[in-house]
Amino acid sequence: MSETKKTIIVLFSGDYDKAMAAYIIANGAAAYDHEVTIFHTFWGLNALRKDENIQVKKGFMEKMFGKMMPRGADKMGLSKMHFAGMGPKMIKGVMKKHNAMSLPSLIEMAQEQDVKLVACTMTMDLLGLQKEELLDNIDYAGVAAYLGDAEDGNVNLFI
Amino acid sequence: MSETKKTIIVLFSGDYDKAMAAYIIANGAAAYDHEVTIFHTFWGLNALRKDENIQVKKGFMEKMFGKMMPRGADKMGLSKMHFAGMGPKMIKGVMKKHNAMSLPSLIEMAQEQDVKLVACTMTMDLLGLQKEELLDNIDYAGVAAYLGDAEDGNVNLFI
Amino acid sequence: MSETKKTIIVLFSGDYDKAMAAYIIANGAAAYDHEVTIFHTFWGLNALRKDENIQVKKGFMEKMFGKMMPRGADKMGLSKMHFAGMGPKMIKGVMKKHNAMSLPSLIEMAQEQDVKLVACTMTMDLLGLQKEELLDNIDYAGVAAYLGDAEDGNVNLFI
Repeated sequence: MSETKKTIIVLFSGDYDKAMAAYIIANGAAAYDHEVTIFHTFWGLNALRKDENIQVKKGFMEKMFGKMMPRGADKMGLSKMHFAGMGPKMIKGVMKKHNAMSLPSLIEMAQEQDVKLVACTMTMDLLGLQKEELLDNIDYAGVAAYLGDAEDGNVNLFI
Repeated sequence: MSETKKTIIVLFSGDYDKAMAAYIIANGAAAYDHEVTIFHTFWGLNALRKDENIQVKKGFMEKMFGKMMPRGADKMGLSKMHFAGMGPKMIKGVMKKHNAMSLPSLIEMAQEQDVKLVACTMTMDLLGLQKEELLDNIDYAGVAAYLGDAEDGNVNLFI
Repeated sequence: MSETKKTIIVLFSGDYDKAMAAYIIANGAAAYDHEVTIFHTFWGLNALRKDENIQVKKGFMEKMFGKMMPRGADKMGLSKMHFAGMGPKMIKGVMKKHNAMSLPSLIEMAQEQDVKLVACTMTMDLLGLQKEELLDNIDYAGVAAYLGDAEDGNVNLFI
């Protein structure tokens, strides 16, 4: 019987700070030899977008969504509206000062630690995001696969 | 010893997209033969409101809350403020195009799959919502009942 | 083999209503003899701030954050922006009318019930919050300690 602990995080939020929290917990759990999965759904999918503009064929709505949503982790905003504008800059400034890792670095570290990064295919379909627009070496799955992982999870979080 | 897996979701949020995520996970878990409970508390209670105006006796504050809060799942807004206005229409348009289920349909499906929908009685009391204003065939309980379920849960989420 | 159930809550949010939900669940779980921990990280740390202005030496950024963030549980806002302004007053009014406990009272009750209140040291460092500014009799720890608790938890929530 396997003794490996499992941590499964649903990243629903498209906020920079919430995604940071998700990836800090994920990297911590991976360092403790947990088997870790982050299931990116809804706005959380934006954390997996490449930051360049990838040319793919899309309908009008899908193009609109593509433009309205942040292109990649570094462009995401904060969860607190009254920090907006000043907020993200201040946070990034203070993080640099304290040598804290940025969200893109946390994602890179997660990939190096074999954290399984999953893009929710239903959301991709809904928002018109295509594989070419997302980071390389990630997995694609739906809610059924998420549940298969989560039902044996030691730590299940919805962020 | 029972082998039935349990999924217990606290739905705190009154956002259309977060409620969708809760109900998609709940319906998925029910399809996998989990015993599923959604405990609706605070703003999440709005997902259980009937969409017509039910005449019940209320104090001034309770009337105000009743008017300020969305009446039923279909009237709820999105979690992202900058999508507001255009956002809910776009999302619903794109969902229709992709034959995705609307929130009211997801709730109906959950009831058909015997997902236990619970209204938090403390919140009902606080916001002045009465049983007549909520969907039929739901349960009423407090935090104690939630914890009784959750402590044996395989998947516990707070949404 | 210990039979004590464990509830571990990550309080990430700085919203009054979400913190209330966290503390209501925590107090309920403690009443059911769970071993309960609330790990306060990011904006959730504000719930642990003393409400007076504590004089400590800080850099410019840290002073700014200190001023911008709510000083203590009683000053926190609601999660719904369109309730802001009117919202917090209405909620507190309606809570008083129904004899519901305020957030500061819920925190006091949690301390009396031996709920372990933990301040995330990484966040303290990032936002420049010092021990003198936080409530007495709390613990200090990082993500590793959180994970050590959470991996054996019966109820894990991210709020």
